[in-house]
Formats: sequence, C-alpha cells, structure tokens
Amino acid sequence: MMKKNKRGFASDNNAGVHPEILEAIVQANQGHVVAYGDDPYTESATRKFEEMFGEDISIYFVYNGTGANVLSLQTLTDSFQAVICAETAHINEDECGAPEKFTGCKLLTIPTENGKVTIDQIKPHLHSVGNEHQAQPRVISITQATELGTVYRPEEIEAISRFAHENGLLVHLDGARIANAAVSLDMQLRETTRDLGIDVLSFGGTKNGVMFGEAVVFFNPDLAQNFRFIRKQGAQLASKMRFIAAQFEALLTDDLWRRNAQHANAMAALFSRNIRDIPRIEIAQPVEANAIFARIPREHIPELQREYFFYVWDETQSIVRWMTSFDTTEDDIMDFVSLLRRLLC
Amino acid sequence: MMKKNKRGFASDNNAGVHPEILEAIVQANQGHVVAYGDDPYTESATRKFEEMFGEDISIYFVYNGTGANVLSLQTLTDSFQAVICAETAHINEDECGAPEKFTGCKLLTIPTENGKVTIDQIKPHLHSVGNEHQAQPRVISITQATELGTVYRPEEIEAISRFAHENGLLVHLDGARIANAAVSLDMQLRETTRDLGIDVLSFGGTKNGVMFGEAVVFFNPDLAQNFRFIRKQGAQLASKMRFIAAQFEALLTDDLWRRNAQHANAMAALFSRNIRDIPRIEIAQPVEANAIFARIPREHIPELQREYFFYVWDETQSIVRWMTSFDTTEDDIMDFVSLLRRLLC
Amino acid sequence: MMKKNKRGFASDNNAGVHPEILEAIVQANQGHVVAYGDDPYTESATRKFEEMFGEDISIYFVYNGTGANVLSLQTLTDSFQAVICAETAHINEDECGAPEKFTGCKLLTIPTENGKVTIDQIKPHLHSVGNEHQAQPRVISITQATELGTVYRPEEIEAISRFAHENGLLVHLDGARIANAAVSLDMQLRETTRDLGIDVLSFGGTKNGVMFGEAVVFFNPDLAQNFRFIRKQGAQLASKMRFIAAQFEALLTDDLWRRNAQHANAMAALFSRNIRDIPRIEIAQPVEANAIFARIPREHIPELQREYFFYVWDETQSIVRWMTSFDTTEDDIMDFVSLLRRLLC
Amino acid sequence: MMKKNKRGFASDNNAGVHPEILEAIVQANQGHVVAYGDDPYTESATRKFEEMFGEDISIYFVYNGTGANVLSLQTLTDSFQAVICAETAHINEDECGAPEKFTGCKLLTIPTENGKVTIDQIKPHLHSVGNEHQAQPRVISITQATELGTVYRPEEIEAISRFAHENGLLVHLDGARIANAAVSLDMQLRETTRDLGIDVLSFGGTKNGVMFGEAVVFFNPDLAQNFRFIRKQGAQLASKMRFIAAQFEALLTDDLWRRNAQHANAMAALFSRNIRDIPRIEIAQPVEANAIFARIPREHIPELQREYFFYVWDETQSIVRWMTSFDTTEDDIMDFVSLLRRLLC
Repeated sequence: MMKKNKRGFASDNNAGVHPEILEAIVQANQGHVVAYGDDPYTESATRKFEEMFGEDISIYFVYNGTGANVLSLQTLTDSFQAVICAETAHINEDECGAPEKFTGCKLLTIPTENGKVTIDQIKPHLHSVGNEHQAQPRVISITQATELGTVYRPEEIEAISRFAHENGLLVHLDGARIANAAVSLDMQLRETTRDLGIDVLSFGGTKNGVMFGEAVVFFNPDLAQNFRFIRKQGAQLASKMRFIAAQFEALLTDDLWRRNAQHANAMAALFSRNIRDIPRIEIAQPVEANAIFARIPREHIPELQREYFFYVWDETQSIVRWMTSFDTTEDDIMDFVSLLRRLLC
Repeated sequence: MMKKNKRGFASDNNAGVHPEILEAIVQANQGHVVAYGDDPYTESATRKFEEMFGEDISIYFVYNGTGANVLSLQTLTDSFQAVICAETAHINEDECGAPEKFTGCKLLTIPTENGKVTIDQIKPHLHSVGNEHQAQPRVISITQATELGTVYRPEEIEAISRFAHENGLLVHLDGARIANAAVSLDMQLRETTRDLGIDVLSFGGTKNGVMFGEAVVFFNPDLAQNFRFIRKQGAQLASKMRFIAAQFEALLTDDLWRRNAQHANAMAALFSRNIRDIPRIEIAQPVEANAIFARIPREHIPELQREYFFYVWDETQSIVRWMTSFDTTEDDIMDFVSLLRRLLC
Repeated sequence: MMKKNKRGFASDNNAGVHPEILEAIVQANQGHVVAYGDDPYTESATRKFEEMFGEDISIYFVYNGTGANVLSLQTLTDSFQAVICAETAHINEDECGAPEKFTGCKLLTIPTENGKVTIDQIKPHLHSVGNEHQAQPRVISITQATELGTVYRPEEIEAISRFAHENGLLVHLDGARIANAAVSLDMQLRETTRDLGIDVLSFGGTKNGVMFGEAVVFFNPDLAQNFRFIRKQGAQLASKMRFIAAQFEALLTDDLWRRNAQHANAMAALFSRNIRDIPRIEIAQPVEANAIFARIPREHIPELQREYFFYVWDETQSIVRWMTSFDTTEDDIMDFVSLLRRLLC
Repeated sequence: MMKKNKRGFASDNNAGVHPEILEAIVQANQGHVVAYGDDPYTESATRKFEEMFGEDISIYFVYNGTGANVLSLQTLTDSFQAVICAETAHINEDECGAPEKFTGCKLLTIPTENGKVTIDQIKPHLHSVGNEHQAQPRVISITQATELGTVYRPEEIEAISRFAHENGLLVHLDGARIANAAVSLDMQLRETTRDLGIDVLSFGGTKNGVMFGEAVVFFNPDLAQNFRFIRKQGAQLASKMRFIAAQFEALLTDDLWRRNAQHANAMAALFSRNIRDIPRIEIAQPVEANAIFARIPREHIPELQREYFFYVWDETQSIVRWMTSFDTTEDDIMDFVSLLRRLLC
C-alpha cells in the first residue's frame, strides 16, 4: 500500500528493522509460550547477554529507551535524591520530564561543550550532601556515544565511575548508541561498560536495527532485586516478551550489533570526510560515532531537507544534525554531498 | 533454534502473532519514515480507526494494556481523585499498583460475583463528593469482556455511562478483550463503546493476535488534548511507531479483529459445551467470551497442566481458568476434553 | 473579638490547647535559636521521648497526623509495594488519598466490625508476594485507639507484629490517640507500642491538647536514616521547630499526656454509663477510649447538634459519634444527657 | 529551663514570634470550634485578606513556605509541564526536590546575578512549546524579595506577568518576604502582587513574626477550585486551623506586617551603612530588603559566628549572609559592627 520510503539523515530511529532481526521475529512466531518473559527465547537471549558481559549480571527487557532510562534511575534512587547529568542528556532534554515523574528526583544538570561531563563539573554538586534542604546526589548518568556524536574515552568514564563510587554515588550509562561507541573505540561492549565501572546500562537496540525493545543491564545484581516489580508498575513489561528477546538474540549473534554500528559509523566518517572542504560548512563537533553536527548557511536548509530529511539542532546558530544508520548507503552520502556542493560551492 | 512451541490454555497472550499482522509488519519495513508517529502508516491506521468509530475521535498508540489503562486514567484525573472499578479489574489486580503510581489516585473497588459492577454498587462511593478528606470519584473504569469471561449487556454499560455523566464522572473502558465482547454481543465495535457513552477506550490488540501495541481511543477529543505529552512522559511513545500502526491497520482490515475474536469465542463455546456433562467439573462463570472458569478436582490439576498449560485462578476453591485464542484449534479442545474425560469420568 | 466558643462532642481536635502546653509555647518565645530543629528545645524534647520509649530510637516532629502517617509509610515502602490496613483506617478514609500520592503504593483494605484487623484477615493479602503483577505487601498499618473508639488488646498487636516480622513486613501504628489507648489499657506508652513490636509510630499530640505537631518515632533507627530528607521533601519540616518541641516537652512532663487522655476517657465512660438506659439509644461499639458511637433516632439529631455539635457517622444506620476531649466537663456530659433524656424518654 | 537565647543574623526564621501574634494565639484558645478551617477565626482572617487584596480572591492557609510553594505549583500544573525559575529560587535550591516530588514537573532554571530573572532569559525556554519530547513550560515562579535580598521593580514584575499571560503561562510569586519587598518599594501588598499580574502568591508569615503558617492567595479563584483537595492530600490542612488564622488576623491588623518588615529592612540598611567603609568587606548585592550579602576575609568568620551566628553563603568566594528580623535591635547591629571593625581595621 505504501510507496517506497526514502532514506534520510533525520535519525537512526527513522530507519526500519535489520533483516536478520526481522527474520528472528518471524521465526519466534510459533505456537504458545508463557507470557511476560518466562519463555525459552528470553532465557536464550539472557544467555547471550551473559556471554557478552559476563556472569553475575541481571538483564531485563523493556519497550524503549525512555523506559530503560527512567526505570533504571527509579531503581537506583529515592525521591529525595538527585541525578547528575549533562544538560544535553536525553533524560534531561528529550523525555518530557519522565525522570522527574517516575522518580520524583531532581536532575542536576551540567552545561557541556561536547556532551561529555567531567569530574570537575560534577564536584560542586556534591556540596549539598547531607543537607536536608537539598536533593541528595545519588546517580551520575552519562551517555555514550553522547547526544552530540562524541565518544567518552575509556579513561574518562573510568575516572567518573571511580569518583562516583568513592562518593557513594552510582553510575548509569544511557547506551542508546553504546554499540556505536564501542565500535568507535574498537572495544568490546563489556570493555566499554562493565569494565569501566558502570553500575547500570540502558542497552540500546532501537537505534541499531531493532524494531522495539531495549535492555536494562545491572552489573551488580543486588541493585536489581526490585526491578521486575518496578518494570511491571512502570508499564514496561511486555506480555509477548519473546519478540523482544528474539531481536536481541539476533543482535548479539554473529556480532550483528557491531556490524550495524560499524557501518553507521563508517558512513558518518565518509560523510564528514567529503564535506570538510566544502565552503561555508563548519563541522561543529568531532565526528566520533554516527552523527555529524555542522553549521551550514540557513538559507539552504529547506532545499536540503526536501531531498534528505534531517533536523536543525540549533536554530540560532544554524547548526544541523545528520545521522547515519545501519542502512545508510554510500550512494545516499555521495548524492547528498553532491547536493551540498551544488548549493554551497 | 527453538523447537515447536505447543499451544495451551494459559492466556490469549501466550499466543503469537496472527500471520496477516506479521505480514503487515514485514511490509512496513521499507526505508525511513519519521519516528514517533509522524508517518504514513500511523496516518493510515488512524483513518481505519475513524472509519470504525466515527470522526471526532483522538487515537493514540501505546505499547501495552497497562500503558493504555494508566495513561488513560492519568489523562482523566488529578491526584486527589479516585477511580471506581471492580475488585477483579486488571487495573486493580494485575498492574502492580501502576494506576496509583502514575496517577496518585485511590482506586475504590467493588466486590463482584462476575466481574461486572452495577450502579447500586457505585452509588455509595459518591458519598464522599465534596468532602476534602476523601479522594474524589472521577472515573468509573469497567472491563469488557470482564476478567471473568463475562460480557456486560449494552444496556448495563449505557446505564453506567448515563449515571456517570449525570454525576460528573467519566467512563473508561478497559477493552483488552473488547473484540471478544463485540463478537459475543454480535455488535460493531462502535456500538459497544462510543454509542454506549464510553469516554475513553483502551483498545486491545495483544490478546487478539497483535505482537505489541494497544490503542487509546478518546471519543471526546477535548479530553485528549494533553495525551501526547502524557504518553511521552509515561515512556509509552514508540519511536518506530509504524510497526504498531501497521499491525492495527491489519487488525482493522477485512475484519481481522472480528475473525480472530469470533474464532476464540467459538473455541471457548465448543470447550464449554463438551465439558458440561463431565462429572466433577463445575463451570463457575457464564462462558460469554473466550474464557472458561471451572471448578475441577484439585488432584488432577498438575497432570492437566503438563499437557496443556493453564492457570489456577482461585486456589482455595480449586477454580481454574482456560483461555482460548485466535489460534486455538478444535483438535486442541477435543484433545484436552478427552484428557479431562479420561481423568474425571 | 470572638465571643466564647462553646464546647461540643464533634471531635477531640475541635478542642483548643491545654494551658500547660500553651504556657510552654509562650516560654519558648525568647530570642533566636537555629531553625529546623537544631535547637535546645528540640534536643530536650527528644530526651523526653527517649526517657519514655527507651534509647536507640529516632524521633522527628512533623506538622500533623496525615504528615506523620504518610511520611512514615513513604519511609518504609517503595512505590511497587502495598500497605495493609483496615477499611476504616484514617490513612484510607480520611486523608484524601495522601498515602497513594506520597508513596505510589496501593492500600489493601480489610473490612472490620470494630476497626481492628486480625491476622486471619491479613493472610490472604500475602498470596501476591513475589508476583510481579501485584503490589507487594510491605507494611501493616494499624490504629490504636481505632477510629471506632475501640482498643486493641496488647496480645492482638503482639500477634500482628510477630506475624508481620515473620513475613518480612513492617508494622506502623497510627497513634493519633495512642494516649487514650495506653490509659484504657493502664499501660505505659512504651508498653503499648515498642514492646509490642511496632516499628514506627505516629505519635499523636493534636487530639490530646497540642496546638499543632505530631511525632514520628522509629523504634529501629536504621529505618529512619532517610527520614529527615523525606520530611523536608514532604514539606513537613517546621522552621520554628522549637514551638513544636516545646509542646511535646510539656506533654511528656508530669504525665500531662496521661492526665489529658485519662480525663477524656473518663468523660466518655461517664457519658456511656449515663445513656445506657435511655430508650432508643443503642451503643454501637465498645466504649474503650474517648469516643461513643451510638444509634439514635434520626429525627432528633438536628436538635441535639444545635446544642452540642457532633457528626453523624453513618447516615443510613443513623449512627452518630460523640467524642470527648481533655477539656470536656462533667457538666457538658450531664447537660447533654439531660437533653437526650428530654427528647427520647 | 532554657537560658535566654541570644539573637543572631542567621535567618529571619531564627527569630521567635511577635508579641501581638502570640497574644492573638492565646486569645484564640477558648472552647471548641470546628476543625479544618470551618471556624470564625478563619472566616475573619479571610476577610482581612480580602480587605488587603480585594475581593474575588481565594485564600488558604497551609503550614509552611515549602507547602505553600509546592501546592501552588501542583495546582497550576500537570506533571508533563515545567516551572521556570531562577537557579537561586527557594523551590530549586532549598526544598529538597519537593516541587518535583509533588508535581512531577521539571524545573527550568535560570542563572542570575542577583536572583531576578528577565524576559530575555525566560524566552529560550519557550522553544519547547508543543514538542512532546520536552516538558511544557506552564508557570514562571519568581521570588520577591529574592533569596539574594534584592527587590524586583514593579515594572519588572509587570513585564514578566504580561509576557507570561501572552504566552499561556501563569505567574507564581514566592512571597516568603513579600512584606519586606512591599516596604522596600513603599507600596501596598496588593500593589506589589495582584496589581502586577501575579496569579498565585505564597504569602509569607514565618519570616515576619508568625509562629507557623503561610497563606496561598489565588487572585483568580478559578485556579483555586481544587486547592482544598490538593491541600488535604498534600498533608497541609491544619486541624486546629484557628491558630494559624488568628496569627494572620494579627499580622494584617494595624499594619503589623508592615511594621515588622519596616523594622527588619531598616536594621539591614543601618547594618550596611555602617560597614561600607570597613576595609576588606565588600557588599555583594544591593541591600534592598532585610539581607546583607558581603564578602569578608575568610579567617575571621569563625570568631564572628561565635558572637552572632550567621551562615556562609558561598564558601569559595567567602560570601556571608546576614539577615535582620523584626526583633533585631540597633544594639545588635552596632555591637556586631564594632566587632567587625575590631577584627578588620
């Protein structure tokens, strides 16, 4: 019924589902299994996570990234506590206040240049510790890759985790694009999360070829003991859980997570290489994952958007965001680059 | 990898996805579309809902039934208000306190014989109106078909709606199995909801062949004006919305919703017809939709469950629940009936 | 400016402030002290509580009974948990849904004849333990003296506490009228609370001659470690705390709490003794504290209320509630009894 | 029992109760009146507010400033909305996250030099309007006098109100020190609030000689229609309401509110006049109400605090806060100034 949908650079969640994942869904559609996750698909996908991240973890599927983030935070906090994060964090900017609603907590935000927070920026927020008049810092939430397409260095995360634990705080990692970060750093998923001291990970699937579903991974299972109640009360417990589990099984099979992210990152690199010399385009952030932020002449934006849809990130500065995904093609890039050259040169 | 899963009678959500719905998902997997519902699939599915229910409605997709219920209630209430419902209501018994968490409201529950509430039972809860020391009734939430497999008569719902509106209350219908009810009553979906005065409907898909996703249908769009914010803050906004929309498009095409429900109801009827004469089985509720509640000898339950899994509903009374679904076969029924006869006769 | 206000039988909180307590307030009004409880008055009142209840307790002042109850419950619960209580409990009937709002929890209510719950009634609510679809019982909240003027026997409370602790539950006691109960049982405050296994006590002052303020007493200080944050976030931290502390200092000095409760109870006993033989009056609950519940002829209620205001408790059964307080006089009683005799004999 | 408490400059809420207010409390302690505000004292105090602010207002007493602020905001918002305020606002800095807990809303904070926000700072927060991914601005909350002892000019507030209303926002004024501001501007209370377009006022009493209690004043009663339920559910409904009402009656009688604030402001002015020429003291904010913020040599702070207690406001900059109150004396000031001179000259 629908005509073929064109690809664009609006977001990696504008892409569809990777064929291997869709095939896994189709294969899972046989007969009856017990609902709510007490089924062999969930069991099997859980094993895959354990192979990837090591044993002694607790892993739970939820519907989406906001669900993964807010239920993680709810699990780690009491309402009188606070979550420290970058001003640009998805939990602060893009979830319509869901963290406040679910947790009752205050977000203590840090302005950043590139989406990455530092210990020096976090420290002043700890002055309130023990003062009953102020929300008590409990969690540092960082995003990897960041919302600005940058990637924390392992030692940066390690330092944050160490600081957090020394100060009685926990570390949550919003990993909506953790695969892109791992590829960027040429590391395993475990090396970029658990091994760096992360306590809880929102493991992203949707932006990496999954239809729906994210995973919450607790590297300390003690933290997770109430999560299944919190998930159910949070309306994030899928009844036909096998269809989320089967997708993650596929994502973690034959390194599909890596292949998809590698491709998306490579396309972003190709993109940025080919526009560096175009006049009047200024790349605004290091291109370290699958996003390009660029300042371009305001007047050409509408024409560009007509061909390949994308979003303006900062109206006042005329900065746009171009995202690549697992299904972006070299032709998409080169075609768009040609258009850019035509308009700007 | 998985061996063929056997069907059972545990729940209609233990079934998989209807082939026409799975096919719709596969077909929707082309290229990029804008995320979060601003896409042609969502547009088209919305049209289908308008054909079904009439214009001047607002319809929103969410992930699951709990999400549909609690966000509906949140939309209709302030925290100091109360929701009147049957003690057996899913919102009271099966959502781990999600309504209280999302809304802050108190549930005022009514004990029932058969899952259906009456005006006479509702009335005493209105004594608190205007008394600031008590939660203020705002919504009556009913379930159709009920959690006990019974079906309200149209005039029963109409009376509740009229009473509600005369008293400044709104009516929410938990329609996780509204299709089964409509089939049972031989009525159209609109006739069993909007035309009876329902204000907001949780329109169920998952228990009728859908993979994931439910729809919230506001018959008065004024009530819905904030719903999209409430949905996002409630972590129920799907980014790849097209895959929910495509499923509902299929469900409302060629009366698939009706065919599925008709089949499930017919299987339940076949089931109950064939066990009425078995000694020591007592059918505990009228079989009006796709559930059979029966009192059976406690000692045979484990053996029966080994063959076809199902749940014990009431331990103390030894009442079990058998549910049929769109994919239950006559052979499933007759085979299980044979087993029952073998054990009980 | 105001003319003399007449006493009535509406509620013990319609009374004013006991002179010794008012005097303590006046005496505390000197110079500056640090706000929010870091002052010598609060220190001293805390000592008084420790003398009364023993060491190793944590005690916090809040503004009112609802505050004491809901913050106690919030401290003891997570949002996915549930509180078991009598249907008549103040937290269920008279706080406009505050417990649900503050905690997110479900209240699991028990219908009672006399305001007292039993283990047999509590037990069925534990079937849901471990089932993620249902709110998880965490606290049993009982009221002593009950809202119906009855008093739990020590062994009844002890049994509830033991059952609770054996099942991983905690016990909260709403002691808005704990003084009346202790007097009724001829026991010390500690003997009727801590020694019976209570974990947290809402210690009432307002209904026993205090102007404003209640105390939350944790008999296990580990439970209290976050209470001061919860109190501040709950808007129950008084800045000029000394004026609450000074009142409780007075209440616990020279057994004023006991003298006040003894008087109120004695007046209720006098009241009930003098109406037992009046025709058409039926005393509806045992008179064990400072309340009389009686069924009286409906037609005489307005005339009686004009002379001494009181509330109708149950319209349909024509049951009224008469409460006595620290300032009720024998003349008040005998005058009202005369009126009753005049009208009913 | 207590020895005489010395006055200090820590906070205006370290002071006690003004004698006229204490006398009003004592006078109100006669006989019984109906609880929860249905009494002649509350009626009479309400009249006083109407005389002050004009008719067509709704006025409610609560326990404290945090209660007044958070219940005001809860009344004006839905959980998906946001409150714009200064970073230094009491609701942001000093209420332990109570606004987030009570409302579920996000606070959108504005860094300021002097505690005052401007329209230009507010405007960028309106970019999110209509975007379901971001909390929707609904209220601008300003503080008058500010937490930094500065006072908005009437035209500044008027401009904010006009801007708010043109953009569908409401204006809340945290008036914990509104009396000090009105005195500073030499205006009536009505002129500094209602006449400038404020929608809801937290009217402070505690920092101006009251023992406990604040008032929430709705200048548009339509906004207040649910407030009494919100107040009860928020645990801020006093049972012996007469004792709050009587205090406000006194505060609004014979201009006591003005006399107290005038005195406190005059003491601050005297204070600042006498330290301007002391070397190594730098006054850090305009002294427009009853607070002096000053940068002083770090090493002398402990000795100063021993004589007259006060708080360090900003450790890193060695800025301290000295507050005056209705009971500060000229001798207190001159004595402390002498000490300063002795140490610093």
